[in-house]
Order: sequence, then structure tokens, then C-alpha cells
Amino acid sequence: MKWCRYQTGQNAPRFGIVEGDTVLDVNGSPFETYEKSGTRHMLSAVRLAVPCMPYNFYAVGANFRKHLEWASQRFKKPFGVPPQCDVGYRSPSALIATDEPIIIPADSEGPVQYEGELVAVVGRTAKKISKEDALRCILGYTLGNDLSERTWQFGDRTMWRGKNADTFKPMGPLIETDLDPNVQDIIVRINGKTVSEYNMSGAIYDLATAISRTSQYVTLHPGDVIWMGCDNACEPDIVAGDVIEIENKAIGVLRNPVTRASA
Amino acid sequence: MKWCRYQTGQNAPRFGIVEGDTVLDVNGSPFETYEKSGTRHMLSAVRLAVPCMPYNFYAVGANFRKHLEWASQRFKKPFGVPPQCDVGYRSPSALIATDEPIIIPADSEGPVQYEGELVAVVGRTAKKISKEDALRCILGYTLGNDLSERTWQFGDRTMWRGKNADTFKPMGPLIETDLDPNVQDIIVRINGKTVSEYNMSGAIYDLATAISRTSQYVTLHPGDVIWMGCDNACEPDIVAGDVIEIENKAIGVLRNPVTRASA
Repeated sequence: MKWCRYQTGQNAPRFGIVEGDTVLDVNGSPFETYEKSGTRHMLSAVRLAVPCMPYNFYAVGANFRKHLEWASQRFKKPFGVPPQCDVGYRSPSALIATDEPIIIPADSEGPVQYEGELVAVVGRTAKKISKEDALRCILGYTLGNDLSERTWQFGDRTMWRGKNADTFKPMGPLIETDLDPNVQDIIVRINGKTVSEYNMSGAIYDLATAISRTSQYVTLHPGDVIWMGCDNACEPDIVAGDVIEIENKAIGVLRNPVTRASA
Repeated sequence: MKWCRYQTGQNAPRFGIVEGDTVLDVNGSPFETYEKSGTRHMLSAVRLAVPCMPYNFYAVGANFRKHLEWASQRFKKPFGVPPQCDVGYRSPSALIATDEPIIIPADSEGPVQYEGELVAVVGRTAKKISKEDALRCILGYTLGNDLSERTWQFGDRTMWRGKNADTFKPMGPLIETDLDPNVQDIIVRINGKTVSEYNMSGAIYDLATAISRTSQYVTLHPGDVIWMGCDNACEPDIVAGDVIEIENKAIGVLRNPVTRASA
């Protein structure tokens, strides 16, 4: 089953169920009760919004060996394998939907890089959940692009603008409820050319581990998102004019053009 | 003017205006339009909720010299003055209201410490706002206790459980719209005894600086909160049975008892 949030005209986003090339509008949301309203749109006639607005925005980060090795070489800093799964935070303020432009701030020295990731969307409240039961709290999966301005990421005291400047967190296009998060292929294309392809089986910490450990201390809430990190190099660096696509066969394509703010 | 969010019985929280010892219920919220509903409660007859549920939760942190000097000595790590104001993140999931219990996780090795802080509540959307105009986006001010489990704060890869375990972010009791954030006294008491008292004039980065700089890259939204950091040592360490009070004369008292989870 595929959930989306969509907009028509100037209306506020609404949840819908995607069936083929149509969207079935619902009253309510996948996080509470809902019923089909009877309204149906052509998918091509609506604008997809960020598929959920998270209450808490978690990122596993540092979760693939080839990515850590690449980052260690490229940035001449040691990025070791984390000894345990410690999630970080990203900011809901940075979220944009598929097709919306990524805007590189005017004073960015760069490099600015993509990180194409699988994103788990929490559907039910969970606290102290076992690894065995962990995936039961998940509604489904979407895609994320964890845009990173490396000068700020490594130079500032926190990752506030390096990872969370406005527009730096594209997420979408929709939420697929039926897939196995541990065997998904994630593909990244820039301007139509594949620049990274990896499988989630390479994750150092799988989603169940991340959920179970996090939930020992922190209650997970419906709508919270958990970004799973990415493998491989994140090259080439991106520049204004690029179009970045993150693809998973079941979820679809998260596609965002890149622009640069004028000074 | 004093805003609160309050609950009666099993009803969902509603916004209200505090006048003397009463709460005037409103339809709507201070972040959009509102009107008094005509319902009035005795303040003593309602439960105060977290005064707003932030969309983004920012913390200036590392913002007072005596606090940095104390932390450097106590934890034998150098905490220098940050060369620029870089905000960090905290998790809305950790918020609790005044009078709700702080629960120290069963496996905490500690020390667990208070950090009593002034909190600014954003009232209007702001992007690229000047330092001169910065405070115009603020609705008002409340108090926060940035509870910290130091073993986890310094030992984990991120501050996810060290600063954001469930119940680690008491905030309240209400939002005072009329005060100067740069001259407020913040007082911390444990079990009735004053353990810290400082004035916001000692902040390394004042609120206007934090807002203006942050907003150059990040849009501030109504309901977002900015915690301003604390001065002084954060001792004694807290233990189950303690009652912690953070006080500001204009805002009131944020009071939370401390318990410990059973293993």
C-alpha cells in the first residue's frame, strides 16, 4: 500500500492512497483513523507534499563502511565504525518534497553533497520494544536526501546549517508500507547518470537494532522518521543546475533540482 | 500577558490566558488567531501542560563562561568559548510539563544534572532577520531544565539519550510575553535550597544574536523554541527524591520531582 500527502491548488496537504496512476483522497491519516472520502485525483494532477511531518526526526548516520572509508579519505578525518547505534537529530524545518528545489545558500563554500537514504516512518507509539518486535511500530518507508554542506558540517560546533539549512532535507515521494527494509537497493542519479547504488544489507546497524536501542530511552511517536544513512562516496559534489534523484524500485523516485541563492 | 496550555480531566490541552489566579480559555492559539471562549477556570483547578509543542527545538548551549569553566574542571575536558553561535537540537519527545516527574533511566551511571534556562518561544515566521529586528519574532518566554546524563552525553556519539531521554526536558510553567530576555535572573533550587542564581546579561551570545544568525540559514516557525543555555556549576548532582525548581520572577516556577525507573 502506498500513502502520499498531496496538494491541489492552494489547498492544505491531505493524505491519500496511491493506486496505479490515481490518488484516493482520505479523511484522517495513516497515523490515526481514516476513511476514503470518495474523491479521486489523477496522480499527475496533484503536487506531492512531504509524505509526513515528523514530530521527531532521527538519523542513524555513520552506518555504512564504504561511506566511512570514503569520508575518512576525502575529508582527512578518521570516521570509524560507531561502537553502538547512537541516533542524531535533523530538523523538520529543512524538509522539502519531491520536485521542490534544493537551494544552496549564497555564502556556501562547499562542497555540497547528496546522501541518498532509506527512511522508516513510525506508525505506532513504541517504548522499550525488542529487536524482534521492532518493525511492528513502522508504518512504511520513504526516501531521503541528507544534503550536507561539508565546510559547515565539520567547521561549526553543531550540524545545524551543515545538515539542516532550509531545503537540505528532501523527503518522499510517498510511503510504501510493504517492503523489507534490510534488502532494498538505493540508487542515486545526478542528471540521469547513476552515481551510487547500494543495498541496505550493508548497514552496520539495521533498522530493528536502531529502533530497539533508541526506544529503550526515547518513546517513538507516530510520524517520527528514522533516516538510515547511506553507503558509498557522495560524489560528484553537487552544483546549481543539477537534478538529483534517489530511487528505490518499490517507493519510487525522490527528484529535486538544485539552485543557488543569490547573494 | 501570560499564556498557558492547560488540561482539565481527560480533555486534550487547550490554550488559555492567565489572569491573576484564573485561566481564561481561548479558542485557537497565540500562534494564529484566537478569541476568548468565555470559559474561566481557577488556575489551581487545572493541570498545566507543556506551554507549546515546538516544531523545531533549538538549544544555544555552551553560552556562559562560568559554566564552561566549571564543566572543564569537573569533566576534565576543555570547554572553550564557541567562536560563533551554533545552535544544537533537542527532541520534542523529551518534553514534560511542570509538576511531571523526571525519570532517571534504571541503567544511568550518572551524574545526572540540572541546567536551568530561559527559553524563547517563536511567535512569527522569521528568515534572514536582522539583529535589530530579531526579538520581534518572539511571542514570549518560558523556562526549561536541560537535564543531562553526563556519562551518556560525553560517551555516546550524539547527545540523543544524554540530553533527550524521555522526561529530560521539563518546560514551563507558562509563557510571559512582556520581559527583556537580556536582564532576567534565573534561580535554581533543589529541595528548596538555592543552588544557582545568574543573570542573562552574562550570556556569551544574546538571544537577538542567536535568532539573527540562525535565521540566515534556517526559517524560524511559530512554536519553535530556543533554549539559551545556563551559567554556573550544575551541582549538586540530582538523585531520586529531589525536587528541582527553576524560577524567574516574571515567568514563575518550573517544578519537577525526580524519580528513578526500576530495572
